[in-house]
Amino acid sequence: MPITTVGLDADDTLWHNETIFRLTQARFLDLLGEHETAAVEARLAEVERRNLRLYGYGIKGFTLSMIETAMELCDGEAPPRIIREILAAGREMIAHPVETLPGVDDALAQLSERYRLVLITKGDLLDQERKLAASGLGDLFAAVEIVSEKDRGTYDRVFARHGTGPHEAVMAGNSMKSDVLPALEAGAYAVHIPYVVTWAHELAEAPAAHDRYGALETIEALPVWIMERDESVA
Amino acid sequence: MPITTVGLDADDTLWHNETIFRLTQARFLDLLGEHETAAVEARLAEVERRNLRLYGYGIKGFTLSMIETAMELCDGEAPPRIIREILAAGREMIAHPVETLPGVDDALAQLSERYRLVLITKGDLLDQERKLAASGLGDLFAAVEIVSEKDRGTYDRVFARHGTGPHEAVMAGNSMKSDVLPALEAGAYAVHIPYVVTWAHELAEAPAAHDRYGALETIEALPVWIMERDESVA
Repeated sequence: MPITTVGLDADDTLWHNETIFRLTQARFLDLLGEHETAAVEARLAEVERRNLRLYGYGIKGFTLSMIETAMELCDGEAPPRIIREILAAGREMIAHPVETLPGVDDALAQLSERYRLVLITKGDLLDQERKLAASGLGDLFAAVEIVSEKDRGTYDRVFARHGTGPHEAVMAGNSMKSDVLPALEAGAYAVHIPYVVTWAHELAEAPAAHDRYGALETIEALPVWIMERDESVA
Repeated sequence: MPITTVGLDADDTLWHNETIFRLTQARFLDLLGEHETAAVEARLAEVERRNLRLYGYGIKGFTLSMIETAMELCDGEAPPRIIREILAAGREMIAHPVETLPGVDDALAQLSERYRLVLITKGDLLDQERKLAASGLGDLFAAVEIVSEKDRGTYDRVFARHGTGPHEAVMAGNSMKSDVLPALEAGAYAVHIPYVVTWAHELAEAPAAHDRYGALETIEALPVWIMERDESVA
């Protein structure tokens, strides 16, 4: 079967993201240094999970969850200084420069010569648009889909709208749970390219043997992986 | 020229929104009751304007701006109780039930029989998807576009993607600045349907005489207004 369309995740696939969250989290742990580190981490994870339904993905929700966590840990009396620091940390995250991962520019330039590239990402709409603009990669994409959830239906819809359906598409990203498993379910090829760290909410097992699944160490190997499977390549 | 596609704004066009912001703002003024009302309102408006570039539109950014405003007005020492109340107010806004405006259900049902309906809205992605689902109107729309800005390019792109281009499309909404003026610039018809209150950042003058512009008091009159201009209607 020919391959016409390549979907790419953004955060931690094209550019650093989770490391910036981790740095901010380290700063947050510092601010709450009077409390036990493990307890602060556990509470933050719990508040984030609880708020995911309300706030969705992204920096603004993370900032609100940090403030809420600080309040809870301080029995509702978090010192104003801590709140100010959290607000500042959130603003700095938003303004953080975008650093593309090694090999991304070359791999995307190669892929864009032959395939329709579609960016498929969760997160705050404005944030993701700004990061794409700052990355300098915007012109390589035929379409950008910022979605609130990545499930089978998302990939069905996006690859139907911007390509020739999931069967002729590949999805590549760092999250087994969001990028790989639901894309395989939709009938697409899916490639896992791990990032150095993974957010706890995105962890999942690799799929059992599956002839449309691949695992690569870096994005540099993606163009060859795809062309080996693309029956339209002579 | 035939009309094929109708774009509709969401907040304050299909359902109440700004009134919920105003109620929360009243609660915020109450919380900061020791400060002069006009001064609090002016500072909040200033902080919101300053943060719009970072946070975009929506409840999470508004909540962060309220916290920041409280901090500034209290010389960096806002009492924890005020911060907790602001967090709670933000969460309640997100969970607020969706109330469609009078006549919306009928008007959309009529329009959807003849035209492709596209929801075109700013705001938090997850929020807007949830409101659409809660409104029960989701099935009437052929497409939903949640965008970070509404300018001429937005309407060009959206009406090209989901319809037959802006010249055969109508945009209807409560904001002169976001719904009417840029849609007219793109070459579409545009209809202003005012809401009881308008956010300061969305105020703009009505266009000078323009043969593709209309002003209606309620959405009930929209189907007839469109069909009178649609040359495909016998």
